This record gives sequence, C-alpha cells and structure tokens, in this order.
Amino acid sequence: MSASKIDKLQTAVDEALTADRQRLAKYLSIETVSAQKKGIPETVAFVQQAFEELGAKVQVWRDIPGSNPFIFATLPAGPTGNASKTLLFYNHYDVQPPEPLAEWHTEPFKLTEVDGKYVARGVSDDKGELMARLSAVKALQNAGGLPCNLKFILEGEEEIGSVHIPQMTQKHATDLAADVVVWETGGKDADENFNITCGVKGIMSFELTVQTAAVDLHSSFAAYADNAAWRLTKALASLRGPADRILVDGFYDDIRELTGPELAAIADLNFNEAQTRETFGITGPLVTDDPKMALANATTMTINGLTSGYEGAGVKTVLPKFAKAKLDCRLVPDQRPEKLARLIQAQLARNGFSDVHVNYLLGENPFRSDLTDPFVQTSITTAHEVYGDRVKLVPNTPGTGPQAPFDEALHAPIVAFGANWSGSGAHAPNESVRIADYAQDVFYTARLLQKFGVGVSK
Amino acid sequence: MSASKIDKLQTAVDEALTADRQRLAKYLSIETVSAQKKGIPETVAFVQQAFEELGAKVQVWRDIPGSNPFIFATLPAGPTGNASKTLLFYNHYDVQPPEPLAEWHTEPFKLTEVDGKYVARGVSDDKGELMARLSAVKALQNAGGLPCNLKFILEGEEEIGSVHIPQMTQKHATDLAADVVVWETGGKDADENFNITCGVKGIMSFELTVQTAAVDLHSSFAAYADNAAWRLTKALASLRGPADRILVDGFYDDIRELTGPELAAIADLNFNEAQTRETFGITGPLVTDDPKMALANATTMTINGLTSGYEGAGVKTVLPKFAKAKLDCRLVPDQRPEKLARLIQAQLARNGFSDVHVNYLLGENPFRSDLTDPFVQTSITTAHEVYGDRVKLVPNTPGTGPQAPFDEALHAPIVAFGANWSGSGAHAPNESVRIADYAQDVFYTARLLQKFGVGVSK
Repeated sequence: MSASKIDKLQTAVDEALTADRQRLAKYLSIETVSAQKKGIPETVAFVQQAFEELGAKVQVWRDIPGSNPFIFATLPAGPTGNASKTLLFYNHYDVQPPEPLAEWHTEPFKLTEVDGKYVARGVSDDKGELMARLSAVKALQNAGGLPCNLKFILEGEEEIGSVHIPQMTQKHATDLAADVVVWETGGKDADENFNITCGVKGIMSFELTVQTAAVDLHSSFAAYADNAAWRLTKALASLRGPADRILVDGFYDDIRELTGPELAAIADLNFNEAQTRETFGITGPLVTDDPKMALANATTMTINGLTSGYEGAGVKTVLPKFAKAKLDCRLVPDQRPEKLARLIQAQLARNGFSDVHVNYLLGENPFRSDLTDPFVQTSITTAHEVYGDRVKLVPNTPGTGPQAPFDEALHAPIVAFGANWSGSGAHAPNESVRIADYAQDVFYTARLLQKFGVGVSK
Repeated sequence: MSASKIDKLQTAVDEALTADRQRLAKYLSIETVSAQKKGIPETVAFVQQAFEELGAKVQVWRDIPGSNPFIFATLPAGPTGNASKTLLFYNHYDVQPPEPLAEWHTEPFKLTEVDGKYVARGVSDDKGELMARLSAVKALQNAGGLPCNLKFILEGEEEIGSVHIPQMTQKHATDLAADVVVWETGGKDADENFNITCGVKGIMSFELTVQTAAVDLHSSFAAYADNAAWRLTKALASLRGPADRILVDGFYDDIRELTGPELAAIADLNFNEAQTRETFGITGPLVTDDPKMALANATTMTINGLTSGYEGAGVKTVLPKFAKAKLDCRLVPDQRPEKLARLIQAQLARNGFSDVHVNYLLGENPFRSDLTDPFVQTSITTAHEVYGDRVKLVPNTPGTGPQAPFDEALHAPIVAFGANWSGSGAHAPNESVRIADYAQDVFYTARLLQKFGVGVSK
C-alpha cells in the first residue's frame, strides 16, 4: 500500500473516531454489571443496533440455559476484499462492578476526559475495545471496503467466569468458523512496549477441607484430640517443597516442551523487578530466579484463602473441628485441570491425609497459539509498522481466559491486543485508556485486517 | 468423731441447705456477666451481705486499676476449733453469658428444679459452689463452731481471663496468707468418680503473622510473588513433627519429671475413649496412645484459628498479602510461657521463617501441688469417707486457671473439688448440678474442714 493509501486509512480512522465519540460515551453509560445482573437487555439492544448501523447481520443467541445472551455479528468482505478469509473477534459486553465508589474521581458510568485519558468503567475492559474495533470497521468501509470477512462473538459473562463459553462454542462451532481469532485485551506494558499475546494459562480452582470432630473442642483436649487446622496445615505443606516445587506425583508430566520461538519470545520479554516490588509493596525475595519464564510457563499452586476456628481479636481457647483452604493452580499446555485434581487427591492419600478432601470448583484448559503461525507473524510485522521497535511477542498471559474452547471448536490461532496502558486499572476505580493509544489501536486493527485480508504491502 | 457427731453434722448440713435455698436462688437471679460488664455492683453487695450474715469480716478491694472488685472475707476458728490453721477458698462471682438463649429449656437466671437437678446459669460455675461453701460454714457453726480459720477470696473476672489475679495476689499476699487453698470447680467425672484435683496446666496464647506484600495480588502473579498463606502454612508445619512432637529446640527442657505418686495417680485415672468419641463426634485416630498421661502432662500446641485471603463461597483468584494463625500451648511444670514464645521465634528464624512473627497474647504458669502433701491426703481420705471407693486423685486439669500466682504468693498446696457432674455444662445452655451432689458436696466440704482443723477421726 502506498503512503497515500496509509494516509487515506489514517484519515478514515480519524473521521471514524470523531464520528463514534458519542457512541462510545453512550455505551459506557449503561451499567452492565453481570455480577449484579444489571443492564443486560439494554446493553444487548445497544450493541445489536451498533452492529446493524455498520451493515452487520446480527443474531442474539439465547439458546444456552442460564446464560446471558451471546451476540453474534457478521460482516462480509468488501468488493475489493478477500472473501475467502475470515477473522473472528471475541469481546464481552459486561463490566466489573464500580465499587469502591469512594475511590473514583469521576462518575464511573460517565465517559470523562482527564489528562489525555478516557476514564470510565469498561473503557479498558472491554467496552472501549469493542467500540475501537467498530471504529476500525467503519474506517475500513470508508477507505475502500472490508479486506476480509469479519465475525464478532460477544459474551455477557466474562466478569463472572465465562462459564457458558464451552457450551456455546460447541453448539455454534459452524457459525463461529474462522481462520483466525482476535481476542480481547492488550496494549502497552510498563515499558511502553505494545504486546501481541498468543495464549493464556489454564486454571484449576479447588478447596481442601478437613473435619476432625462434630463440634469445636476446648483446646485443653488437644492432649488427645486431633485438630482440623493442623491436619490442613500439614497436608498443604506436604504438597509443596523447596523452591516452591509442587510435590504431587505426575503434576508436571503433561507440560509441553517449549519451542525455540517460544523460548526466544520469553527471553525477549521484560520483567521490571523494581517496579513490580514498588507496585505491590513486595519486600521479600521472589519465588523464582526467572520471572519471565515463570510468568509464561510455570505451573503455580496458590493458597487463595485459609479459614479455621476463631479468627477474631484476643484469645479463644478452641480446638477447631473444621478447616478449609481455597487454592488455584495456573496451568500451562498441555495440563488438564480434572486430571490434576485427581493427582492431588491421590498424593494427599499417599502422604497420610486421606481425611483431607479435594473439592473441585472450576477448571479451564491452557492454550497457546503456534508462534510461527502466519497470522501471529502478520500481527507482529503490522505492529512494528504502527508501533516501531517497541513491540513484544508474549507467548501467553499468566492469567486465564476461555481461549481453549475456541481452539477446540475452531482450530484457529488466537492473538490478543488492545489499547490499554500499564495504568489502565481494568478492574479498579478510575479505569482508563490514553486517548492517543485508543486511536493508535483503531489504526493498528484496521491495518492488521488489511494485511490479513489482502496482504497489502507498504 | 463418733457416729452421732457425724449424724449431727449431717443434720446441720440438711438444715443449712433448707435455710439457704432462697439465698441460692437470689444469687443466681443476678445477671453477673463480666464479659458484658453486667451486674457487678449488685453482685458484690449481695455477696458481702451473705458473708456478713455469717459473721465474716468483709473487705471489698478496689485497689487494682481496671479490675472488677475482689471480695475478701475472713471467719475465725470457733471456740473448739484450731486457731493456728487457716484455709483459703478461691471462687469467682462472675458467670458466662447465657447465649445462645434459644437453647435453654428454662429461664437462664431463674433457679429451676428439673429431674433432680438445679438448672441455672452459674449454678455449677461458680455461684452454686460459693453458696454450697457458705452452707457448709453455716452447718459447722451450728454443729459446734468452725474448726479452723477461714478466708475467702472472690474475683469477678474469671470468665474473662483472671487478668488481675497476679497483681492482686502480690499486693495482698499477707492478707491471703493460709496453710492450704481450696480452689473452685470439681465434682464427679463421667464414671461417677469424685475428683480431687491438685493443679492446672499453664497456657501461652500467641499469634503467628506474616505479610508478604502491601496489597493482595492477582493469583496469576504467583509465578513470581510469594504468598503469605504459604509462608504461614510452611512455618506452622515446620514447628510440628511426626507424633505431634513440637519441633522447637528447648521446648521440653523445663518439664519436671513426674514423681512416683504422680505417675501412680495418672495410672489410676480413667479415660473413656468411646464416650469421648461420642461426645465430640471424633472419628479419626487420637493423637496419643496414652490420653491419661497426655491430659496430665503433655505440652500441646493447638492452632485455634487460621485466617488468610478470601474465605467466602466460590472462586476468588487472589494471592493474599497477609496470613495469621492463632495458637495456644498448654504447659506443664516448670515450663514458662515467655520463654517458650522466645524459643518459638528463634526456631522460626532457624527454619527460614524470620518473616513470620510471634505475637505473644497471654501466659499463665502451670501449677501442681505436691501429691504427698498432708492436705491432699486429708482431702482423699475424707473423700473416701463421704464418696466411698469412687474417688480419683487428679494431678492437674488439662485446662488452665490462675493457681500459680496463689502458689507464688502463699506457697500453699491447692486442691480443687466441687458439686458438678459430667453433664453440668459449665459454659453451655441448661447448666446444672444434681441436687443430691450439691448436698453431698456441702457435707464433704464441712467434713474436710473438720479434719483439716481439728483432725477429728471417725
């Protein structure tokens, strides 16, 4: 594409951003808090209309019992586009609750500009991102037409665990069929590098519970009576060795060896230890010598919470009948949560803790795209064009999202990027994106679609 | 003492019990709940009057700052008594809160007779016991006079930790001076054996706390960030080995070797494992092969409570910044709580847990009377006279009470007995004593004073 064509796209993006400013504000004004079951029908109607105004065909799927509706929209390639290539966007229309309200400096559900930033609940996660993608669509339409077929799938339960995604992707695999998937969330990291992220860790959330008596005992009876809190403590300690190794037979067996490109990408990442310590107030040693590797490929076992007996002030001489730990494990390819839960229960029995029960809460499989996939490479080269040298290829996030069910249904690479900055505070008060990043993201999205669809060169 | 003298004492006891029935009811009707700061002045006035009606000299000590008043009463030996011997009774005038109210079958603060039992809050612990002792005094006065000098010390904070006892015993050591001390609480065990108990375990209550960050982290950062709950769990586990051995250097060093009479008394105790399991719903193995020995002479370390991170329902992927365990150790002669706290902190540092802090909450020294002391022996022989074969000498309770400060101030043996039965439920709803036990306890108390004071034979 000639310089004038790039200029033409840039102009179309600028015009779309100006035209779409009010739509962004309107979308952010709807309080779509899935955790509080708020605003779902209004939001679905709003999003449906926004797609229809772009000429999309829209379906609202209400066929998964108990689920908030899914919104599915399709737009065909334009006359000069490549009708044989299809890209699927995944986004969600629900947002986190705005609480704690006292910590907001502006109205949470009113788009406000502060110091070059858009501030509102959802402007980063994930309403702003959908609106940016729609602005990219409009810009492309005005700059010569869509370069490929587009599909959008939106869920309304991302902030409450995406529990209906696997059912939906199985049921609608044919509808969703696409060559590539663009995921939600991304942007620039603390070093201002634009990240292209290609996967997620999986998760297995569970509880360990132990009951030693029908009632709490007076602690003087510790002379003969067992103690649920001690049983739990010792059982937990038996699962974790020096250097935080998880001492569960078979736990690491299914971890796929990292490829050369994955190792290279991990080596190329940054980890700013000083800034991380400052952000979280960490004073002790880290649990790893190689945080970059651990963030990408370490299986973790985290105690999320401990509960037993008397937790108040002062002294209560009680011997607790019951103790509970809540835990999660973060998993990497090709670990599977159900299998790990069985391994943990078996290890507890081998360690002498058959009275400590694993209560499986939820699991999501890990997923990582092939980093040598052409679409991953196109995402990178396009990012270099738009963001210059400050681009990082991230094999996967340390966190979890429902990518694996899409992979299982579509067998397509998944890439995530967005308009965030390191201070976006996705789930926090004063959630924000920088306006310049937002505009850059719209341009990047449009340009990536061109390169994916019709392979235009500079 | 001839049979007719015993009959005379029995008659005097019966008359005193009849005469004192209304006083018992009145005393139990006052809601003296120290934890709720209720009823203290009325109770002090009532007890003072009760003593004065028996001819006692009464002092109300208000000289310990922050303490509920102590009541100190003295009664001299009668004309035929032994004025060179003095016995001190320890009791308390406060009671536990009546809650949960819904579980009472009668009014908590109304003395009610049910199936041969007195039922009311405090009838066992400890108002009924004081009234029984006053009835014994009255019976002795009517049967020829007091056989020795008597002193009574009552506190109003036993149910909230007896925290002012050490100051009081130091300040008033001269006032309290006595040859022997009779402690509160006792009676018949589950096998209907009357217990003479000669000591208490000590206690050291403390917290372990650890903080790993200034804020809770997202659990995906477990890849590099340490976890307060894991630090606590591993630190706790490092303090306790197989067979529940406390792995703290020097922890057992100060334990005094048991004497022959102590070993014999422990061997003669009963431990009804089946009944204990039934009472508490214990299904797993006990922590000791020898519960009798452990109840008498095992040092224990009990986790009273665990707190960290998210403790609610469902999943929260949090990495906790803070974790806390509450613990108590029960101590035996001659362990000292402050020293053990220092040993635990030192052991944690040696184990690699210098970030886990010992927060000392309270301590009480253990105490055990010399089982060969003549007063212990007199208590036993008198018990055989009154209760027949069903008598057990208990070296000490597994629980704790403020006996050591009395020992340190008075250097006198301490013996505990009372009118309870195994179902008395001292701190529970429907607290009770059996009326026949109550009468027997009054007779036993009077008879013991005779034997202690003037050494009367059968």
